[in-house]
Amino acid sequence: MQNDILLRTLAGENTERPPVWLMRQAGRILPEYRAIRASLSGFKELVSTPDLAAEVTVQPVDALEVDAAIVFSDILVIPEAMGLDYELIEKVGPRFPRVIERKADIEQLEYGQVAAERLDYVYQALEKTQERLAGRVPLIGFAGAPWTLLCYMIEGQGSKTFAKARRLLHAEPEMAEMLMDKLTDTIISYLKLKVKHGAQVLQVFDSWSGVLSRPLYAKYGIKYLQRIAEAIDEVPLILFSKGAWFSLTDLAQIEGVALGLDWQTDPLLARDVCGADRILQGNLDPTILYANEEDIAAKTHKMISAFGGHHIVNLGHGVYPDTPLTGVRAFIQAVKTFNY
Amino acid sequence: MQNDILLRTLAGENTERPPVWLMRQAGRILPEYRAIRASLSGFKELVSTPDLAAEVTVQPVDALEVDAAIVFSDILVIPEAMGLDYELIEKVGPRFPRVIERKADIEQLEYGQVAAERLDYVYQALEKTQERLAGRVPLIGFAGAPWTLLCYMIEGQGSKTFAKARRLLHAEPEMAEMLMDKLTDTIISYLKLKVKHGAQVLQVFDSWSGVLSRPLYAKYGIKYLQRIAEAIDEVPLILFSKGAWFSLTDLAQIEGVALGLDWQTDPLLARDVCGADRILQGNLDPTILYANEEDIAAKTHKMISAFGGHHIVNLGHGVYPDTPLTGVRAFIQAVKTFNY
Repeated sequence: MQNDILLRTLAGENTERPPVWLMRQAGRILPEYRAIRASLSGFKELVSTPDLAAEVTVQPVDALEVDAAIVFSDILVIPEAMGLDYELIEKVGPRFPRVIERKADIEQLEYGQVAAERLDYVYQALEKTQERLAGRVPLIGFAGAPWTLLCYMIEGQGSKTFAKARRLLHAEPEMAEMLMDKLTDTIISYLKLKVKHGAQVLQVFDSWSGVLSRPLYAKYGIKYLQRIAEAIDEVPLILFSKGAWFSLTDLAQIEGVALGLDWQTDPLLARDVCGADRILQGNLDPTILYANEEDIAAKTHKMISAFGGHHIVNLGHGVYPDTPLTGVRAFIQAVKTFNY
Repeated sequence: MQNDILLRTLAGENTERPPVWLMRQAGRILPEYRAIRASLSGFKELVSTPDLAAEVTVQPVDALEVDAAIVFSDILVIPEAMGLDYELIEKVGPRFPRVIERKADIEQLEYGQVAAERLDYVYQALEKTQERLAGRVPLIGFAGAPWTLLCYMIEGQGSKTFAKARRLLHAEPEMAEMLMDKLTDTIISYLKLKVKHGAQVLQVFDSWSGVLSRPLYAKYGIKYLQRIAEAIDEVPLILFSKGAWFSLTDLAQIEGVALGLDWQTDPLLARDVCGADRILQGNLDPTILYANEEDIAAKTHKMISAFGGHHIVNLGHGVYPDTPLTGVRAFIQAVKTFNY
């Protein structure tokens, strides 16, 4: 591996500077991504065509010189593999023609290894990406967390409140647990297959944990994240529970994982709660990349100093599609010129 | 006043039980509201017709026996009074045909007393509500907070990230401050006129504070809330900064106001940060009202005990439109049977 700074950081080493990558780095911020995307029928064609997914995965490694690649995909491939197809509607978001309404709907779902094995195009994309990377940087694979995937499978689309999914926890807790179990089994099989086909680091995205509360997230989120963390011993695992500030103490009890942080969480607070040795990832406010380059550098350096080591630099959210490339480059440059 | 338990609590008295009302209590949860709404062209007709607004404002006082009425209106009447019209599209949300794009757009806005005086239909609705209430319970008036209104005036609609509005803070901070100043002046004039026409308590909703961070919210949110708090000395003021957990310490520095809390904030933590005498409002997870009546009562009593007095019971968010009335009634009943 030519650049292994991410792997060394995840192994607990003290590195000369923190590694840096961006959530959604393979995406609309890059003109070469937009060119490929414009030639296709839709986002799902890109996700399901291994050659193209591999190509856009490697683009930011060439164009931005980030310290890792993350395989281009979508968290909703898991519900689809379990039997709930989805569409991605331009400028609107995902739509599931069928959703989970009753116990029988859950009983009919495929799950575990059988479901995970359906996602052959993802594993091919990983292999093709590794060929193109040729040992330059490590490759990250990812999955949605059980709670976040349950949200979509119940609601059938995004939501400001995910009230239908939350209603299930209070009105039909057994149904919720049944679905969470099947999701967790599938996610574990999927992540293990990703490792088998080339993922060297894994990240689990819990995008909607912030709509819960500490007791509910303990019961319907962290319990299952813990199960995933125990099952994955092949490669380092990063858990990103967005908005779950109320559960940071509980998340810090999960051993052996790195924790991703959103931009609202103060680095000093997170370090205090999680301990000096915990590997933390994040968390610059993505809208700071709209500022001038001096501001970006100053705020990035301030953040790195606050985390004080054992830190993977990232934004606190996926990079916003209209972020100017000059801002992205200033951010990465600020990390690369930092010295602990 | 026949039932003044809300006013006594806001005056700092130790009451026999906490008062209770619900955000969005005048709304779709009530069949009598849906009946009126179905006969109209749209939500805006209801907001702008004083007789009808007064009627739906009083409905929950009759139907649910809550301890306060809150005048039926919309936070977006302020941008409209300043010169930015909006439409409310059924099942989609607000849409502004024109948004703020450059300094000149802000220079052209009406603001302060002149803008506030345009909202005569709101003041009429307050007066007509007071006639119908006939001294039964106090009447709450409300406004959106400057940051939340800026979000809509920049974005032109709702957003998951409000990235355009946040971009302004980093890329055009002077423009942001110019708009915040005009909004704050208008909100203060508006709230004072509301008091003049019958509001006995005021609440300011900062619905999108959660997308900021502690330093940004201090600069672009709390600074202006502080200005509003200093200007309003006629009646008690409640500030509800949703999602702003990171700023609770700063909010607690604003003297003489009650603080609303979302459902993610643990009552014991809030009490610890805000002090024993601070009046706190909230914060049951609204999805708990989908549970059975015993669960609702148990969780409501547990929450009241945790706040330990100086507390106004509410949900941590507006009541969700499909909440069963049995759940709402169980919640209110649980408060009314509580004894400190």
